[in-house]
Amino acid sequence: MSGLARFSLNQETIKQWSLPELARGCEGAGVPGVGLWRTPVQEYGVERAARLVRDAGLAVTSLCRGGFLTAIDPATRAVALDDNRAAVDEAATLGTDTLVLVSGGLPDGSRDLPGARERIADALGELAPYAAERGVRLAIEPLHPMYASDRCVVSTLAQALDLAERFPPDRVGVVVDTYHVWWDDTVAAQIERAGRGGRIAAFQLADWITPLPEGVLLGRGRLGDGCVDLRWFRERVDAAGYDGPVEVEIFNPGLWARDGAEVLAEVTGRYCLHVL
Amino acid sequence: MSGLARFSLNQETIKQWSLPELARGCEGAGVPGVGLWRTPVQEYGVERAARLVRDAGLAVTSLCRGGFLTAIDPATRAVALDDNRAAVDEAATLGTDTLVLVSGGLPDGSRDLPGARERIADALGELAPYAAERGVRLAIEPLHPMYASDRCVVSTLAQALDLAERFPPDRVGVVVDTYHVWWDDTVAAQIERAGRGGRIAAFQLADWITPLPEGVLLGRGRLGDGCVDLRWFRERVDAAGYDGPVEVEIFNPGLWARDGAEVLAEVTGRYCLHVL
Repeated sequence: MSGLARFSLNQETIKQWSLPELARGCEGAGVPGVGLWRTPVQEYGVERAARLVRDAGLAVTSLCRGGFLTAIDPATRAVALDDNRAAVDEAATLGTDTLVLVSGGLPDGSRDLPGARERIADALGELAPYAAERGVRLAIEPLHPMYASDRCVVSTLAQALDLAERFPPDRVGVVVDTYHVWWDDTVAAQIERAGRGGRIAAFQLADWITPLPEGVLLGRGRLGDGCVDLRWFRERVDAAGYDGPVEVEIFNPGLWARDGAEVLAEVTGRYCLHVL
Repeated sequence: MSGLARFSLNQETIKQWSLPELARGCEGAGVPGVGLWRTPVQEYGVERAARLVRDAGLAVTSLCRGGFLTAIDPATRAVALDDNRAAVDEAATLGTDTLVLVSGGLPDGSRDLPGARERIADALGELAPYAAERGVRLAIEPLHPMYASDRCVVSTLAQALDLAERFPPDRVGVVVDTYHVWWDDTVAAQIERAGRGGRIAAFQLADWITPLPEGVLLGRGRLGDGCVDLRWFRERVDAAGYDGPVEVEIFNPGLWARDGAEVLAEVTGRYCLHVL
């Protein structure tokens, strides 16, 4: 079995590539899977993108992303639910069973974290049956606490599991992304809990480096450049019974400025070195 | 009792003020306490600073800061311990019983968070008796997880308490700083735990605003500008039995560019509005 058997390239890592470049590049490099994002897929055409990756022999390991489910205003909430149903449809068309959810931050002027988390649970209750009918599982991604106010009030794996466990495991799972959870001293126990319940829907990798850039969105480190013990995490999710894709998702303008094929070769090399 | 009876101004909030300006400004505004920082105190002279604030009738509610106790190299570790003993001496001279500790990040090239946390515990074991002899309690401050790699591997109140509880409560306590712990869904329970054990050594306030600036150090929000329910926190620490100072500590260049007296008036006004 190739060292890349479980490897998946999240499209944002090499976002300078068009979808055809991505499909060709991955096929040529022996990469078996890709994680896709809605906007480039929509721009290219969902059916057409599905055909493209299928023809290249690529599995779509996840679609990023649904979520943003914390609105209080009923009209805004209805729009968000509609958009999430559309994301489920796109995931089904692409042939992936995993829709990643970034749950949403605090609405403007609100300071009510528990209320926001409860509205996410309500929305999951509406969306999960719709997704299940289409063979798609909702994957709650806890984001680093530095995003708690504006992107995601679900900040730890424990919180994500508290939400997911209100639903059957084949309907709602969680994402383990090293960038978001590496600092948490309860993470080993929570990975075990997630594995035991069959809740690990996706495993994503990026390294943590400082200083963080303004806005803290685009400062993820290349595998091995930072302080995350990536192999330790891979061993933990494996030990928890997860045998699915290992997706590398790095948002870093330094990578986007380079030749895509060169970046992919570097990413896969570092993956073998630091993760396997 | 004045609304400012428990109010304390952390010196960094108005760092454009010299120590004499701080003493005069606080005395004039009816502010009963100040939190001081080692560098400006050392520059002014520790004994002289102690006299200055005493003559102005000000209590020194805390000294920031000791810590940085995670070094592996024995020589670096010895220097850090010496420096912390000096910080204890300075705290004693200033007449405060609270030395705030920022525990330190991962040493260069290390990915071992549990190891770093264990070295902090070892260092506390060496420092706590020295501090106790001088009437000073070590106050472990959990810092927001975005500082976990480079400043403080103690990221939650639960972790801080796990460390503190290895020692008697009059020797090692914790700091509850809203900026660092506001996002944590376990924080109410941990504040209760801290109060029950007599561990709350300091309570500090700043609000959380976004976008975060590059380096994420100087983006704290003025009270009321962000998404932290400050009054909820004050009520929680009160209910946990804490009746000590409430220290406002905001690192924000926008405040530093303004007239100090004007900033202090604004800070105390917002304190009454959003905290009491």
